[in-house]
Amino acid sequence: MADIFDGQKLAKEKEEKLKAEIKKVKIKPKLVVVLVGDDPASRLYVELKKEAAERVGIDFELKKFKKSISQDSIIAYIQEKNGEKATSGIMVQLPLPKNFDEFKIRRSIHPFKDVDCLHPKNLGMLLLGKPTYYPAAVKAVLAIIKNLKGRKVVIVGASNLVGKPLAMVLSNLGATVTLCRSTTRNLAKHTKMADILVSATGKPGLIKKEMVKKGAVVIDVGETKGDVEEDVAQVASFLTPVPGGVGPVTVVSLLENVVKLSS
Amino acid sequence: MADIFDGQKLAKEKEEKLKAEIKKVKIKPKLVVVLVGDDPASRLYVELKKEAAERVGIDFELKKFKKSISQDSIIAYIQEKNGEKATSGIMVQLPLPKNFDEFKIRRSIHPFKDVDCLHPKNLGMLLLGKPTYYPAAVKAVLAIIKNLKGRKVVIVGASNLVGKPLAMVLSNLGATVTLCRSTTRNLAKHTKMADILVSATGKPGLIKKEMVKKGAVVIDVGETKGDVEEDVAQVASFLTPVPGGVGPVTVVSLLENVVKLSS
Repeated sequence: MADIFDGQKLAKEKEEKLKAEIKKVKIKPKLVVVLVGDDPASRLYVELKKEAAERVGIDFELKKFKKSISQDSIIAYIQEKNGEKATSGIMVQLPLPKNFDEFKIRRSIHPFKDVDCLHPKNLGMLLLGKPTYYPAAVKAVLAIIKNLKGRKVVIVGASNLVGKPLAMVLSNLGATVTLCRSTTRNLAKHTKMADILVSATGKPGLIKKEMVKKGAVVIDVGETKGDVEEDVAQVASFLTPVPGGVGPVTVVSLLENVVKLSS
Repeated sequence: MADIFDGQKLAKEKEEKLKAEIKKVKIKPKLVVVLVGDDPASRLYVELKKEAAERVGIDFELKKFKKSISQDSIIAYIQEKNGEKATSGIMVQLPLPKNFDEFKIRRSIHPFKDVDCLHPKNLGMLLLGKPTYYPAAVKAVLAIIKNLKGRKVVIVGASNLVGKPLAMVLSNLGATVTLCRSTTRNLAKHTKMADILVSATGKPGLIKKEMVKKGAVVIDVGETKGDVEEDVAQVASFLTPVPGGVGPVTVVSLLENVVKLSS
């Protein structure tokens, strides 16, 4: 049976460290979160960030917009916050309702306040192996898996927020990386080769026992319900559960980014 | 036996098109190339670019620096060219002698004049699937291989100039991509799975017949001597030779970038 990762525990430890660090700085860091519409999952994620921010001593400012707001109004708000000295980091909770141009809105966040690390410049630095910081989910994965050199990593899901930046970072750290996506044929053939299998698709039950090599490390970055079936624990040597795995570590990693950007 | 790709022919066709396009524009595009030291391969590559630029009607300005030059002097020169309206694109011939900070020098090229597409911002746009243009070698590979959706691509060599950006672009186009590097264990196991195998390491003879799946498309981006052994043609369905394969198409792709940046 696999070791089951305790994300709550690692998150707690990281929070304690961060709290101590924040106590030492003169100006309290501040995170601004933009939430558009009323997607229940998005509201939950924002709430989790808020609670964690309050626990560690980060000011948390939530700006809610109705779905009917104009795109320009959101961008104008972000630009105002870009110019506000007290704001250390800004993020837009994704996904946005479909009528918005996600790329354009995200890009309006100044690269120095881009706490999600989604600005082209920050992603480019990452690709070049010169990251100033990492997207929170990537940071969380790096906190969980070690010794990447020469290991075979298979990532399922090629998103801008997780899959693609993670592939670049793990390659820079010496891993052999395969990036699968919805167009991949015979997914199991690829996942079976993985020493480390990372799934980040948001498709519950996508990763089944028979798709995993005996002894593999399995990292589930799937949202809400997780991508990995429970009985994968019978073949994996290490497994991150959902909930209580990568999720809590991602939240505190985001807050670490806020502190980093504030200094 | 594999079809052998005729890079000279495709490059010629592309040059003719570009020449016609340049005739229509009012201001002649200009490429500035910075060459530091006297590496013979670098001098050859610069010469090939110069000849091609002259054939299509692009002004070519070569700035040679001695190895003993200070880094700041190179950056000052680049910054001068950044501000010069007549200059459409600037590139630094790589590799630089070891005493220079390649990243810092390259970064001094303004993203709007970054003809190699190596500025973090331009690489980030590429990762996000919003490329304004491509690194020349990536563009050349895209001109040669089509129908990427669902195909399994294995890239050997994870450089900033070819391997990593190519991996991102091909993934965005729907391919399943494996990125191998010098730390990869059992390289043949990976290369054997490829529908399309791209090698870009500069290690002559790295890719041998027994490492290639029957019927695979093999793209050799290895410099000077090529990475792929000749007898791979016996198993591949399509092969790009060195010289006369990807190389000439890369040169004209670079010139296409110059014209794109000038408009």
